[in-house]
Amino acid sequence: MNLAELPTPCLVLDRTILARNIRGMAETLLRLNVPLRPHMKTAKSIDVARLALAGQPGGITVSTLAEAEYFFSHGITDILYAVGITPQKLERVCKLNAAGAQIIVITDDLATAATIAAQPAPPATLIEIDSGEQRGGVGPDSGLLLQLAGRLGACLRGVMTHAGHSYAGRGVSEIARIAEAERSAVTDAAARLRDAGHTIEIVSAGSSPTARHAENLDGITEVRAGVYMFGDLFQAEIETHGIDAIAVTVLTSVIGRRDGRVLVDAGGLALSKDRSTEAAPRDYGYGLALDIRGTRGLGNAIVQRAYQEHGVVELDPMHPVDLPVGAKIRIAPNHTCMTAAAHDRYFVVDGDQEVVAIWHRVNGW
Amino acid sequence: MNLAELPTPCLVLDRTILARNIRGMAETLLRLNVPLRPHMKTAKSIDVARLALAGQPGGITVSTLAEAEYFFSHGITDILYAVGITPQKLERVCKLNAAGAQIIVITDDLATAATIAAQPAPPATLIEIDSGEQRGGVGPDSGLLLQLAGRLGACLRGVMTHAGHSYAGRGVSEIARIAEAERSAVTDAAARLRDAGHTIEIVSAGSSPTARHAENLDGITEVRAGVYMFGDLFQAEIETHGIDAIAVTVLTSVIGRRDGRVLVDAGGLALSKDRSTEAAPRDYGYGLALDIRGTRGLGNAIVQRAYQEHGVVELDPMHPVDLPVGAKIRIAPNHTCMTAAAHDRYFVVDGDQEVVAIWHRVNGW
Repeated sequence: MNLAELPTPCLVLDRTILARNIRGMAETLLRLNVPLRPHMKTAKSIDVARLALAGQPGGITVSTLAEAEYFFSHGITDILYAVGITPQKLERVCKLNAAGAQIIVITDDLATAATIAAQPAPPATLIEIDSGEQRGGVGPDSGLLLQLAGRLGACLRGVMTHAGHSYAGRGVSEIARIAEAERSAVTDAAARLRDAGHTIEIVSAGSSPTARHAENLDGITEVRAGVYMFGDLFQAEIETHGIDAIAVTVLTSVIGRRDGRVLVDAGGLALSKDRSTEAAPRDYGYGLALDIRGTRGLGNAIVQRAYQEHGVVELDPMHPVDLPVGAKIRIAPNHTCMTAAAHDRYFVVDGDQEVVAIWHRVNGW
Repeated sequence: MNLAELPTPCLVLDRTILARNIRGMAETLLRLNVPLRPHMKTAKSIDVARLALAGQPGGITVSTLAEAEYFFSHGITDILYAVGITPQKLERVCKLNAAGAQIIVITDDLATAATIAAQPAPPATLIEIDSGEQRGGVGPDSGLLLQLAGRLGACLRGVMTHAGHSYAGRGVSEIARIAEAERSAVTDAAARLRDAGHTIEIVSAGSSPTARHAENLDGITEVRAGVYMFGDLFQAEIETHGIDAIAVTVLTSVIGRRDGRVLVDAGGLALSKDRSTEAAPRDYGYGLALDIRGTRGLGNAIVQRAYQEHGVVELDPMHPVDLPVGAKIRIAPNHTCMTAAAHDRYFVVDGDQEVVAIWHRVNGW
C-alpha cells in the first residue's frame, strides 16, 4: 500500500524519523545519567511505546486512565498517571492495581491524600511540585509539602514536577535555565521530605524541551518526555529539535484550487485548532504543507485557514506546483499531541511512501 | 445514572434544549417556506438526526464519507456530501449508491466534473457556488459555471452554496444581509443554468446564522444548517441564539485548586483548542464554566488556559463557590463541532442530572 492510495485525511508516522528522535533522547539522557519514563500522551500507541522503552527501565507515563488500561493490557505494569487524581478515579486505579498493574498517582491536595491513604491497598503516590508553571503542584518551600507527606504516610513514594512553562522558553539557554529551575524545585522538595524522615525513591521531572536542553539532572531519578518522539512545528520553533525531526504528518487530498492556493480535506478536525506557533518566531498558521514524500517541495506553503473539514493552503509563489483535485500532500502539525488525537491510527512509513504498518492509538478517556 | 457518577471528561447533551433548538429552526424555516436538509457534521448521531428530521423531507447533509456510510447504515438514503469530491472518493460514493444510497456530491472543478460524468452510474451532482466566503465554489457570474454544467451533463442536479462568512457577521442585520447575498448568489447561478437549458432541481444554501436570520429564501429549495441543534458560545456571541440554547457541554472534575481558580480534567483535547470567541464581543477563553446542573451557578468563570488534559478555570469573585477535588462542573464550548468531535458518545439528560440515554457519534473519516 502506498500513501497515494490511502483515504484522506489520515495520519502518517515516519518510523525512520521516530527512531532517530528516540535514539537522540536516549543518548541525551545517557549523558546526563538519568533513565527515561517516556510520556505516552503524544503517541498513545503500544508499538511506539516499545520503541521508546528500548534500553530504559520499562516504566511509562500516561495522561489518561484509558491509556493506563490500554498499556497495562499490553503488558506494561509500571505506569505513572501524571494528572492529579480524584477520589472517583482512584477506584479505577485500584482495580487495575489489584489486577497486577503498578499505577502510581499524583496529588497536591490534602483531602485527596487522605482518601488515597485510606484505601485498602493504596497506590504509590507522588506529591506534585510546582517548579514555576503555576498549573498544579505545591511549591518546594510550601508548608503543604510536609502536611501532604504526613497524610500520605506509607504510600508516599516520591515527588514529581513538570516545567510546562519551558514551552514559553525561546532558545537553548532560556530552556536550560528552566530545566535547572525544574530540577532544583523537585530535588529541593525531595531533600525537605528526606530531612523530615520520609523515604523518597522517585524524583521525577521533565518535558521534552527541558529534557533536551538540561545541563545537569543531578538528583533526578527519571525524566518524563513525550513530544520529542514525534516533534512538531512549535517544538522546532523553540529549538527542541530541527524541523526535519517531525515524524508525524497529516496526509490530505486537494479538493479545490484557486489562484495561489489549494483547498484540502484536512481542516480543524484533522489538524486541530491549535495555533501555538502564533506565539513562536515563525507563525505556521494551522500547519506547514509538505509534498507527499514529506519533503519541502512546496516551499513555505502554509495552512492559513482551517474550517471543520476544509483547510486553505496558501502556496509559496517561489515554489510553483501543479496540484490538481485529488493530489495528495502532507501537513506538518503545530502541536503533534493535539493533531494526532483526532486520528485512531498511524499509517507507518520508513522514509518513503510505502505503508509498512498500521499502528493503533488509544484516544478518549 | 447521574452526572455525578460519570467518569470525566465526557460530553453531556441536554435533550430538552436540543428539542427546543430543533423546533425553533423548523418554525423559522416553515415561515420562510423552505424545508431543511439538516447538516449532521455537528451531531454525527442517528438519534439526533431522527429528531432533526421530524416534519422535514428526510434528506441530510454530511461532511465526511464516514458519516455518509454511518447514516446510510441507519436507513437514511438521501445524503448530500457537502465537501468537494475527489476522484478517489467517488469510488466510495458509487459503492454506497450501488447499495441503495443516493449520495449527492459537489464540485467546482472541471476535471473532476468530467470524471464524475464518466462513471458507469454517476452520482447526482451540485455545482458549488461561492457566495462570498472565498473558500470553495465558482462565482455565479463565472464563465466556469456553464462549462461545469456542460461537463456534468445528465448528472447535474443543481447548485449549492454555504455563506460561511456569516460567522464573521456581528448582529442580526449584518447576518440578514449575508443571508440575502447567499440566496441571491445561488439563485442567480440557478437562473443562468436554467436559461442555458439545464434542469436545476436543487438550489441548496445555508449555515446556522443565515438560516436563523434570513428574511427571504425565495428560490431556495432546501436549507442546510447543523450547529443550531447544539449551539455554542460563539453562535451566542454572533446572536444566532441565546446563551441558554447551548445543548452540549463537557462534564469535568476538579483535579486541583488554588486561590481564585480550579484545575479541571477537561483540557485542549476534551474542549478543543478552538478560540473562536477571541474575535467575538466577549472572549470566553476555552469555554464558560457552569455548575453540574448546567446553570450559571459559577457566574463568569472561564477556562483561561487549556493544556492537553488540564484546564485552568478562573473563578468569578462575585460567585464564591467551594469546589473540592472531585467536584464536577460543566463547560459550555466555544465551538460545538470541534468540542464534540473529541468524544465518542453523548450522555443525554433532560434538563437535570439524570442520564436518560447514551447516544453514539461517528467520528473520523
